[in-house]
Amino acid sequence: MSRRGLLTGGALAAGGALAGGAAIATTRTGSGPPPASADTTPVASVGGLVEPFHGTRQAGVSTEPQAHASFVALTLRRGTDRAALGRMLRLLTDDAARLTQGRPALADTEAELGLLPARLTVTFGFGPGLYRAAGVDDRRPASVTELPSFRIDRLQPAWSGGDLLLQICADDAISVAHAQRVLIKDSRPFATVRWVQQGFRRSPGVEPGGHTQRNLFGQLDGTANPRPGAPMDTALWVPEGPAWLRDSTTVVLRRISMNMETWDLLGRTDRELAVGRRLDTGAPLTGTAEHDEPDFAATDADGLTVIPDFSHMTRAHVTDDRLKILRRPYNYDGVPTAEGHADSGLIFASYQADIARQFLPIQRRLADRDLLNEWTTPIGSAVFAIPPGCQPGGWIGEQVLA
Amino acid sequence: MSRRGLLTGGALAAGGALAGGAAIATTRTGSGPPPASADTTPVASVGGLVEPFHGTRQAGVSTEPQAHASFVALTLRRGTDRAALGRMLRLLTDDAARLTQGRPALADTEAELGLLPARLTVTFGFGPGLYRAAGVDDRRPASVTELPSFRIDRLQPAWSGGDLLLQICADDAISVAHAQRVLIKDSRPFATVRWVQQGFRRSPGVEPGGHTQRNLFGQLDGTANPRPGAPMDTALWVPEGPAWLRDSTTVVLRRISMNMETWDLLGRTDRELAVGRRLDTGAPLTGTAEHDEPDFAATDADGLTVIPDFSHMTRAHVTDDRLKILRRPYNYDGVPTAEGHADSGLIFASYQADIARQFLPIQRRLADRDLLNEWTTPIGSAVFAIPPGCQPGGWIGEQVLA
Repeated sequence: MSRRGLLTGGALAAGGALAGGAAIATTRTGSGPPPASADTTPVASVGGLVEPFHGTRQAGVSTEPQAHASFVALTLRRGTDRAALGRMLRLLTDDAARLTQGRPALADTEAELGLLPARLTVTFGFGPGLYRAAGVDDRRPASVTELPSFRIDRLQPAWSGGDLLLQICADDAISVAHAQRVLIKDSRPFATVRWVQQGFRRSPGVEPGGHTQRNLFGQLDGTANPRPGAPMDTALWVPEGPAWLRDSTTVVLRRISMNMETWDLLGRTDRELAVGRRLDTGAPLTGTAEHDEPDFAATDADGLTVIPDFSHMTRAHVTDDRLKILRRPYNYDGVPTAEGHADSGLIFASYQADIARQFLPIQRRLADRDLLNEWTTPIGSAVFAIPPGCQPGGWIGEQVLA
Repeated sequence: MSRRGLLTGGALAAGGALAGGAAIATTRTGSGPPPASADTTPVASVGGLVEPFHGTRQAGVSTEPQAHASFVALTLRRGTDRAALGRMLRLLTDDAARLTQGRPALADTEAELGLLPARLTVTFGFGPGLYRAAGVDDRRPASVTELPSFRIDRLQPAWSGGDLLLQICADDAISVAHAQRVLIKDSRPFATVRWVQQGFRRSPGVEPGGHTQRNLFGQLDGTANPRPGAPMDTALWVPEGPAWLRDSTTVVLRRISMNMETWDLLGRTDRELAVGRRLDTGAPLTGTAEHDEPDFAATDADGLTVIPDFSHMTRAHVTDDRLKILRRPYNYDGVPTAEGHADSGLIFASYQADIARQFLPIQRRLADRDLLNEWTTPIGSAVFAIPPGCQPGGWIGEQVLA
C-alpha cells in the first residue's frame, strides 16, 4: 500500500471533521515504499494533512518535500546560555508541536491561521555557535563546522552562518508565513534574525508521475537521491552513539545564484552535456529514463565518452548509500533588475549523517571541475546539526542541552 | 452542476494525457454558479488545469483567484511608440496564449517549465503613460489616472506607477516564475522593470468550504465581493461603448503594509470591532455566517451600535452592484528585520468598471475614518486599464493601438 494510498484513505475517512480544524495523520516517509505516481488525494484535503511532529527523528528531512519553505537563521543574543537555550527550545518545541498538528500556538494572536497545517514541519538545526554559547562543544557532531572555502564561492555574510536554524516547510504559503511569525516572535528574547531564505517547489500534485524537483534552469534536480527506506536511512541518520548524536543528521545550506542570462545563451545539447542528463526526462545521456544507471564508459562514434567527464552528474556521482546525500532543494526567485535580469537560484539543502564523509567529497569534486559552475555561483553557506527528535513532553535539543 | 464538478470530470477524463503536457480546459468563472464547498479535484490534476486565454474579456479578473501572483510593472523605454507597442503586445500576447495553455513560448529556453500551467493567467494592464506614449490618450478610460493622494498614504515610488502591467497568476509558483521570466525577457527591447510584487493566497484546496482569502492579520478578506454571475459582471465590465472600452475593466493596485507588531497588541474583541466581523467565521458582528447581511442599526444593551461606525466593514459597505468592487488581494511576506519585525502586508487588487464611480468613494470613506488605518499603511499605488480580450490571431491592445 503506497503512502499516497494512506493519505487518501485518511482524507476520505476524516471527511467533515476538517472544517473544525481536526487534522489527518499521515505516515512519515523514509521507511515506506516510494509514493505512487498518480496522486488521487483530493485537493480539498491538502490543508488538513499533518506530518507527525514527535518521534525519534525530526520531521522535515525524509519528509516528502512540501511546496514552500522558509529557512530562518537566528543569531543568539549575548547572554543566551545553556539554561536560556533550554527555555527557548521548550517554547519553540511547544509552538512547533501545536502548529504542525493544526492547533494554534499557546499565545497565537492569529489563531485562525494555525488551523490548516498543510503538512507543516518545523525542523531545528544547531549551528557551531549554539554549542559554544551553551558550553557543550563536546556534543557538537564533529563535521558540523564551517565549510572550507571553495574557489567557486562568492559568499555573502547576509546569507551565511547562523546559530539556530528554523526550517519551516508546508504545502501552503500562509501556513509557512504564520509559523514563521510565531516562531520568530517567541525567539526574540533569545536571538535576532540573521537571514531568512524563502523558497518554493511545485504545488502539491502539480508535477505528475514523480517528485523530483525541477529547478529554474529547467533541470530535474535530486534524481540521485538515496531511495526511501533503508538506503535513505543509511545516508541520513546516525545509527548509534550517545543520545545527542544517535538519530541526528546534518544539513548544509548553500544559496546558489543561477545566471539565467548566460544559461540562456546555451543550446539544449550544450545544456545536456553540462548536466549529463536529458532536460526533458532527466535520463542520463546513456539512458532513456530518469532513474537509469548512467554508463560513464560508453563512447560515441568519435570515441568520446557520451557523458562528459566535466558533467555535473559525473562529478556528483556516488554509488555507496553511506556516501550519498539527500538533496531537498527549493527554488528562489527574487525581484529582477530594471534591465530585466532575473534574481533566480536554488536554496540547495543537503542532508547527510556526516558532512565530512558525504557532502565534502562531492562538493570538492564539483568545485574542482563541474561545467555547471560556469552558470552558478554559491553566494551563501551555513551548516547545522539536526539533533534527534523528541517525544510528547520532551523538547528538541534536550539530549544536547539538558 | 458546480464548476468544480466540471473540473473534476475534465481531470478524470483527460487522465494519462497529462504527462505529455496536454491540458484540461476549465470553464471561466464569472458566469457560472459559485464553486461547491467540497473540492474533490485530485491534486494530481492541478498542474494540467487550464484557464482559457482568448475571449471577449481578459482572464485573471473574474477567474477564481490562483494561489500565486506576480504583478510586474514596466516603464516604457523612450522611443516605444504606438507601432513598437503593437509589436511588443503581439509578442507578449503570443507568449501568454501559449504558456497559459501549457505550451512553451516560441523562444522558450526552459521549455519543460512551460508544460504545467496550473491555471496560469496573464492579464495585461495599461497605465496612463502607455496611452501618452502611443498618442492615443483619447482612448484612455477616463478614470484611469493617478489617484488623488489620501492622508493615510505613505507611497514609495518603488511600489508605485507603471506604464504596462503584467499580472501573472497560477496555482503553482514555478509556473508563475517561468512565465514572468519569459514575458520580461521579451519586454526588454521595449521597456524596463519598474517594480515586481509577488504574493500568495492559500494553495489549491487548502481553505475548505469557501474561497474568501484570509490575510496575515487572520481576517477573511473579500467577503463583500459581488456574487459571481450577473452581479459581478455588472461591477466589472464596461457593457458598451467603442471597441477599446467595451468589455474592459480597470485595476487599482495598492501595496498595504500591515503592522503586525501593533496589531498583536490588540485583543480579539478590539480586532473584531475594528473590522466589524468575527475573526473566525467572518460573520458580521450582528450575524452568524460570513455572508449574512450586516445590521448597522442593531444596538447593544448600552444603546451603542453593535457594529461601530468606525469599523472597516461599515466604511467599505456598498449594496448596489454597480458600485461594488472586486477585491482579489494577495498576501506578501518579506524578510523580517533583525529584531524580528515582520515585513507583511497585502497586495490589494481592486477591479471595477470605473475607478471614479466605484473605487474612489469607498477609498475616500476608508481614508477618512476606518479604524484599520491604525495598523495598515498604503506604501504603493498604481492604476491600469485592463483592455478587452482578443480572439485567436488577435492581440491584447489591438482595439486601443491598431
